[in-house]
Amino acid sequence: MSRSTLGTALSVTLFGESHGPAIGAVVDGLAPGIPVDEAFIAAQMDLRRPYGALGTGRREADAVEILSGVFRGRTTGTPVCVMIRNADAHSADYEATRWLARPGHADWTAFAKYHGFEDYRGGGHFSGRLTAALVAAGALVIPALRSRGILVGTHIAECAGIADAPFAENAADLRKQLEELAGRTFAVLDEDAGAAMRERIEAAAADGDSVGGILECAVAGLPAGVGEPWFDTLEGLLAHGLFAIPAVKGVEFGAGFACSRMRGSTMNDAFRMAGGAVTTVTNNNGGINGGISNGSPVVLRCAVKPTPSIFKEQETVDFGAGENATLALKGRHDPAIVHRARVVVDSVVALVLTDALTMRFGTDWLAGQATCRTTD
Amino acid sequence: MSRSTLGTALSVTLFGESHGPAIGAVVDGLAPGIPVDEAFIAAQMDLRRPYGALGTGRREADAVEILSGVFRGRTTGTPVCVMIRNADAHSADYEATRWLARPGHADWTAFAKYHGFEDYRGGGHFSGRLTAALVAAGALVIPALRSRGILVGTHIAECAGIADAPFAENAADLRKQLEELAGRTFAVLDEDAGAAMRERIEAAAADGDSVGGILECAVAGLPAGVGEPWFDTLEGLLAHGLFAIPAVKGVEFGAGFACSRMRGSTMNDAFRMAGGAVTTVTNNNGGINGGISNGSPVVLRCAVKPTPSIFKEQETVDFGAGENATLALKGRHDPAIVHRARVVVDSVVALVLTDALTMRFGTDWLAGQATCRTTD
Amino acid sequence: MSRSTLGTALSVTLFGESHGPAIGAVVDGLAPGIPVDEAFIAAQMDLRRPYGALGTGRREADAVEILSGVFRGRTTGTPVCVMIRNADAHSADYEATRWLARPGHADWTAFAKYHGFEDYRGGGHFSGRLTAALVAAGALVIPALRSRGILVGTHIAECAGIADAPFAENAADLRKQLEELAGRTFAVLDEDAGAAMRERIEAAAADGDSVGGILECAVAGLPAGVGEPWFDTLEGLLAHGLFAIPAVKGVEFGAGFACSRMRGSTMNDAFRMAGGAVTTVTNNNGGINGGISNGSPVVLRCAVKPTPSIFKEQETVDFGAGENATLALKGRHDPAIVHRARVVVDSVVALVLTDALTMRFGTDWLAGQATCRTTD
Amino acid sequence: MSRSTLGTALSVTLFGESHGPAIGAVVDGLAPGIPVDEAFIAAQMDLRRPYGALGTGRREADAVEILSGVFRGRTTGTPVCVMIRNADAHSADYEATRWLARPGHADWTAFAKYHGFEDYRGGGHFSGRLTAALVAAGALVIPALRSRGILVGTHIAECAGIADAPFAENAADLRKQLEELAGRTFAVLDEDAGAAMRERIEAAAADGDSVGGILECAVAGLPAGVGEPWFDTLEGLLAHGLFAIPAVKGVEFGAGFACSRMRGSTMNDAFRMAGGAVTTVTNNNGGINGGISNGSPVVLRCAVKPTPSIFKEQETVDFGAGENATLALKGRHDPAIVHRARVVVDSVVALVLTDALTMRFGTDWLAGQATCRTTD
Repeated sequence: MSRSTLGTALSVTLFGESHGPAIGAVVDGLAPGIPVDEAFIAAQMDLRRPYGALGTGRREADAVEILSGVFRGRTTGTPVCVMIRNADAHSADYEATRWLARPGHADWTAFAKYHGFEDYRGGGHFSGRLTAALVAAGALVIPALRSRGILVGTHIAECAGIADAPFAENAADLRKQLEELAGRTFAVLDEDAGAAMRERIEAAAADGDSVGGILECAVAGLPAGVGEPWFDTLEGLLAHGLFAIPAVKGVEFGAGFACSRMRGSTMNDAFRMAGGAVTTVTNNNGGINGGISNGSPVVLRCAVKPTPSIFKEQETVDFGAGENATLALKGRHDPAIVHRARVVVDSVVALVLTDALTMRFGTDWLAGQATCRTTD
Repeated sequence: MSRSTLGTALSVTLFGESHGPAIGAVVDGLAPGIPVDEAFIAAQMDLRRPYGALGTGRREADAVEILSGVFRGRTTGTPVCVMIRNADAHSADYEATRWLARPGHADWTAFAKYHGFEDYRGGGHFSGRLTAALVAAGALVIPALRSRGILVGTHIAECAGIADAPFAENAADLRKQLEELAGRTFAVLDEDAGAAMRERIEAAAADGDSVGGILECAVAGLPAGVGEPWFDTLEGLLAHGLFAIPAVKGVEFGAGFACSRMRGSTMNDAFRMAGGAVTTVTNNNGGINGGISNGSPVVLRCAVKPTPSIFKEQETVDFGAGENATLALKGRHDPAIVHRARVVVDSVVALVLTDALTMRFGTDWLAGQATCRTTD
Repeated sequence: MSRSTLGTALSVTLFGESHGPAIGAVVDGLAPGIPVDEAFIAAQMDLRRPYGALGTGRREADAVEILSGVFRGRTTGTPVCVMIRNADAHSADYEATRWLARPGHADWTAFAKYHGFEDYRGGGHFSGRLTAALVAAGALVIPALRSRGILVGTHIAECAGIADAPFAENAADLRKQLEELAGRTFAVLDEDAGAAMRERIEAAAADGDSVGGILECAVAGLPAGVGEPWFDTLEGLLAHGLFAIPAVKGVEFGAGFACSRMRGSTMNDAFRMAGGAVTTVTNNNGGINGGISNGSPVVLRCAVKPTPSIFKEQETVDFGAGENATLALKGRHDPAIVHRARVVVDSVVALVLTDALTMRFGTDWLAGQATCRTTD
Repeated sequence: MSRSTLGTALSVTLFGESHGPAIGAVVDGLAPGIPVDEAFIAAQMDLRRPYGALGTGRREADAVEILSGVFRGRTTGTPVCVMIRNADAHSADYEATRWLARPGHADWTAFAKYHGFEDYRGGGHFSGRLTAALVAAGALVIPALRSRGILVGTHIAECAGIADAPFAENAADLRKQLEELAGRTFAVLDEDAGAAMRERIEAAAADGDSVGGILECAVAGLPAGVGEPWFDTLEGLLAHGLFAIPAVKGVEFGAGFACSRMRGSTMNDAFRMAGGAVTTVTNNNGGINGGISNGSPVVLRCAVKPTPSIFKEQETVDFGAGENATLALKGRHDPAIVHRARVVVDSVVALVLTDALTMRFGTDWLAGQATCRTTD
């Protein structure tokens, strides 16, 4: 339990509320000398931002200010604080519903924990808006991982019942897919499937309703031998981070829940030498055996629930008065967040893996051999 | 990353290898004054032990010795070390396959991480046998949670494609089910389903193969307001612990992956006052909103893969020689572990929740009001 | 090892560099409902700020901006980020000495750790300036501790060889002294001793030299039973935090190093009942037995070395070139920091004790009984 | 706050009570492939054991059983549990004084924390006897550090007012001294001083009293660049571990408290190139600048209070009855523990530094280049 801090050798401490002055994160344990690409950070922020008909009307510039830990374009090795000011907050929208628990939201649980002192406006500290800081944090390590040959990418494997094309089984093809996904706003492998998904999202929006989906993430190039048998399995570390993403209600690796209906002879991934390296023929274990990476791609899926903010009238309680009530939300809400959450999944996976890699190989590893300079 | 230690305010540190002198756990942070019921510990150990046609031939007494932290039948508040000697180990079985990576096992990843110094006999530190120590640790807190009104119970929701009856939606009925499950060796709600599952396990065994399943756990009586928004969500903490159980490849809460096909209007759990308390009408969020318990039962499911130890010939590599090879296991192996893993799930859930409760309410809470005695 | 994060149940994560955009801290785990007194924060900042002839010429406004975790004047229970912009930085002063290791400073060790990527200007992340963020963090908990009857106060027990009057042995008198110290800029109990100290500081400054001292801190009102026997003793937790204050080279409790020449019959603190409570007649153990508070005041002393920035010429190395060199500092430096460090000691002690108290009594304790409001 | 666990990348979890079945420690995070020398472990245990006229009459064999994590004479990389059975415990001695707080001991604070459920016999979990497990844990890493060129050694710098000869300033001479100290039962550099110390210990024993002292530890060969600026300074990490040793009431580095009377021009350690390496001319900072090792020997001193168990009558309270009382101890007690605590200091310092080194250089570093074997 370290509350708002994720990770050990590489840690991320999150702060902020949806309608407070700012949100941000402190990222500690980064190798010194990692180039920081502000354009890449901004591009990642854009991937998370709502847009067009699919998103909330709230439009934040999401300009990331780096307050510390970066000097002359590279990490110093000391904590990096990224801060994003809040601007377009309509706080008054939330006064009328102060004591009404929005179903599927954390209003009631926040009250149960914080006794009414919580900042309730727009979900306060629970707001999905805080994932913007996670994305900024992730954008510090994603290029560094790439420089070490490690690619992280996520696609919308399913949305509102529509399935995307699957990840390639072949490692080279998978790397190509991950490169392609990197720049896509609505991250699917099959554009037709993507179009069908968007239609369903819009149809739900037209009904004042919302839809969910499944995000599938793959990591190519992770060395074998990372993770712990008990308790810091790679699955456990990743799941711990991923469940912090609002709306994630399930995490599975490789064949995941489908493995429960397989026999061992099908589920087991045979090993085979390839190019001098140990590889697996199939990848039902999602690149992880005994909690430790086996050199095959790490593959995981997150179930993302439909956005709880809907415009249909719902039954609820007034927890201030202790009475039943009804609620019909107004304001600006996403009919789906699965496409926006995708870059958050990438970010969390990248941060968690960097933690595990740093633990394994020490604090200089991520920046590679080029960490030493005696002259400018 | 704390490696072999799970938890913060209540922590469990695991040690041991399958064929070493002993396995065990140090449980730290227990409230002082908790009665320790050695008969209950033994009964829990029995639930994990293999038996009859369904289990491995290895038969360990699993006698738990308490080395510290218990005085005159109660916890002292200082670390409790539980130790279980290994006895019935056939180490010679593993010499012939020293350098062969058993598919689905951690032999290769152990080598990648420990460079060949790992104790490879019977899976060494990765062995499911270490869950015996987790069960002993869990048996220290399960009765204490019960004394505070918190019941934890798990059933085999599915095995080899056969589904058990579901948990009751009604809280009182659920508590009754959890009480009934507590004593069952093969923990199903519907005995006919259980018989069908056992048939399928035996059929797989006859084929030299194995089967998997799904374990569903419910926690009744957990107070609202436990858990953190970022990052120590109740989902994240529980999943982190549960993925340490060998063979678990997926964890979901409430509707879990099914939520990805729901609309928000179906997924959202309406709130309603009942007996003065805030309750939810449905429980698609599994008792957790925003990472924090909402007072409804916590419900989660774990995907358990089929036992990787099968007797069919499999393709693999000799990672000592760096060559392809084939492997046909001999020895004693379970055709399914889902029924044995159930008490491990109960134990991990109980330990993780005790950690979160201790963090929330302090170190005396679990022992209730009876913690003070000035005379014997 | 959690690097830039101090504490568990109450944690402080520090960020920033002396000449970067800002410094700050994220304080996590504060009870919800603690009143936040911005005037008190500003007053504490003033106590740390240099002034008059005794301090560096750098004059920062040290305006604390609260970015999160405070709503309508009270803590929400979620992370509080305090940020202080840097303004009056003369970075050019440091270019000429980039590769010269200032003796007593961290220039060389920073290079050894960060390979030259460190922000070297003004000590970068190592700068004593970061203690401003610690003081802001401490100012969040000091009034809350006071509301629970716990007073923390520090005086300059010794400076440049001049000793202050000692703390009172009587608890009521000690509380009075702690109250008086709270507002003092140059925190001594005996003003004549203080005047003599200031003379010596000024004399050292006139020589281009610097002086050190001893800060003695007392905590009155801490309940008995806080701390752990192994390893999180109250001494260990406090020392861990206090050694982070730049210039602290020793920490002792109660009789401290003097105990090494005592006999047990003198050192042992006899117990005596007083007003129904167990008390100690003497306090050679500094209020701590076996790592746990015994109800007597916690008393500790920190050795503060003379400021390493002096104007005399010093022998050193150019670690860029790997050559011997000499160095004569220019710029703005303190001839003593002991008087400024005093409020930092108060802050660290308050933060560490809040952590231990939160661990012991849970997350609501610090805000007392008034944590629940259902109406505004 | 991790209670009974010390360290992160290398952690030690302690368990046991003085009169319980056993004491022990789980050491996690050791590099795989470290040779384990059971004879060395036994020799270290002997250094801590009481002997002759200077020690308690309790005579334990202190046989260390390794329960896990060692295979064929080398560490596996998974947790090592060392266990020591208690044998020669005279529990009945403690019944008569159950409710009397021994001055200087933790009886009262244990009660304040554990509400009477603590095992009070012989100090229970607070007993100095648990340091035997720390010594066993330390004996796992001390030879590994030595194999990497890092020597740790401690002498009795002062006992009962008698001073030992100082450590050599020259690095080569210091290494020789550390080698010589390793095998000494009563670890002094000047045997005459040692004889005088023993006389004073015996004189105190004859008076039914006890004496204290100062232990000085030096570490030679630690690379520069280890430790953190905030908050895990090398000083803070070491002090945190050292204050867990019962009777330690002060920890200082380099010039320590003496620095408070120095001027900066004296205190500052000038740098000078020597043999291509940056070195310091003096070592007033104890090998640490800004919390990070500078390559010079780490030098620290611990104040060890006189054993609180004395035979003189003392004033105290009966905390069961809430009344004043007197106490005259019987039984077996040490008139000094400073000579026995010396190997505990070595062990804690070695464990803490291994943690910091592992954090810095990753999990394979300690075992050097010889970590990989594909054949036996």
